[in-house]
Amino acid sequence: MDIKSKLWIEIDGEPVFGRGRSMLLKAIDRHGSISRAAKEINISYRRAWSYIKAMEERLGIKLVERQSGGKDGGGAVLTQDARDFLKKYELMEEGIRDMVDKRFKGLFGK
Amino acid sequence: MDIKSKLWIEIDGEPVFGRGRSMLLKAIDRHGSISRAAKEINISYRRAWSYIKAMEERLGIKLVERQSGGKDGGGAVLTQDARDFLKKYELMEEGIRDMVDKRFKGLFGK
Repeated sequence: MDIKSKLWIEIDGEPVFGRGRSMLLKAIDRHGSISRAAKEINISYRRAWSYIKAMEERLGIKLVERQSGGKDGGGAVLTQDARDFLKKYELMEEGIRDMVDKRFKGLFGK
Repeated sequence: MDIKSKLWIEIDGEPVFGRGRSMLLKAIDRHGSISRAAKEINISYRRAWSYIKAMEERLGIKLVERQSGGKDGGGAVLTQDARDFLKKYELMEEGIRDMVDKRFKGLFGK
């Protein structure tokens, strides 16, 4: 028996950030490109971009800086704010996963 | 900003128990009837019954005792094992909700 958990952040009852969005930001960081990041996580460029815009708007922070070039041209980098946010999110996820496992084992003993 | 979480138990990678199943068991307990419980949570009797069978099989414990009468006839009660399991599950859920909130506030300060 295993315990599974899913976490996400909401603002005014609307989901804003979770595992999928964190994967998108990390992929942008790795590839330096929104289109390659979108390809890696199997969504369209258009969708990736709309996720970024929605997150930026709802969180009130700039997350991705696009560099010269258009859709398939220039690159993209995460802002320092995005890195800080991601880091906190990942710390939170890890810590919670550990706590959930402990609590589950403590109660169900498996 | 709020943190949301969803928990569920898996066995061999298959979901076995979570919020929805716990609501089904609690509704059976309240109504003393699978069909009334199913109606309350908006699923068919057939589906409720298949959930119960699947849970019992995967968890290896008897959860619901049907009393005389058929589909819409007799009642149903939770076994003591079901009550014990539910209680542990709810304790776990509550404890985790509190921990998740604390961890979120500690990191994101909101």
